[in-house]
Amino acid sequence: MNTEARIRIRVQLGDLPLFGPGKAALLTAIDEVGSIAGAARALGMSYRRAWLLVDSMNQNFTGPLVAASPGGRGVGGSRVTDLGRRVLAAYHAVEVDAARAAGKPLADLQTMVAAEPGPSVAGEPE
Amino acid sequence: MNTEARIRIRVQLGDLPLFGPGKAALLTAIDEVGSIAGAARALGMSYRRAWLLVDSMNQNFTGPLVAASPGGRGVGGSRVTDLGRRVLAAYHAVEVDAARAAGKPLADLQTMVAAEPGPSVAGEPE
Repeated sequence: MNTEARIRIRVQLGDLPLFGPGKAALLTAIDEVGSIAGAARALGMSYRRAWLLVDSMNQNFTGPLVAASPGGRGVGGSRVTDLGRRVLAAYHAVEVDAARAAGKPLADLQTMVAAEPGPSVAGEPE
Repeated sequence: MNTEARIRIRVQLGDLPLFGPGKAALLTAIDEVGSIAGAARALGMSYRRAWLLVDSMNQNFTGPLVAASPGGRGVGGSRVTDLGRRVLAAYHAVEVDAARAAGKPLADLQTMVAAEPGPSVAGEPE
């Protein structure tokens, strides 16, 4: 298995999960595929869950991150808005800057990892 | 509500969740309370879940992070080992260094947050 330590970052507002790897992947997939349903399929996520995540993103920012496509691409098409792109870019910048800065303590942590790490705890949120 | 954006960091080995805020809180509570059961109660976590998380930590590093207390404090006492303290310190250093470095893009992201962010999606992992 791949045993290189890396970090995953979630941005919170108090206790509210604002944005993280899952929403970033969903936005990216919507941008590539052109619909929420297609993006959900590509990520192995239920349509309902994808829709709820999009709805949450659209409520938590100053405007929608995902909007209906302008006509011509069939029913149900969606696109990532300019604001959605800016949110995604800011999140990726958080990831890159954080990973770069945390390189040394992360390497320290890595030296303490077992040669053959065991399985994780089911549903583990850490 | 508190709407200041902050980051939460999980350290992964490939897809394996190695260490994050939940395990850090559990180790800290065990150190304060002196037992896994007491720490679980203090965190509102089931004993079984706390035990599984401790078992996972003890398997994933080069030695146990939590061990039985030396006698005298009653049945079931546990303590955080020196290795456990070093893991916790390295993780906190990752958190501090990452948060400091990501300040600017996080502030950018904050400017795009709605004045009254909505509720999150149940069980949302991002």
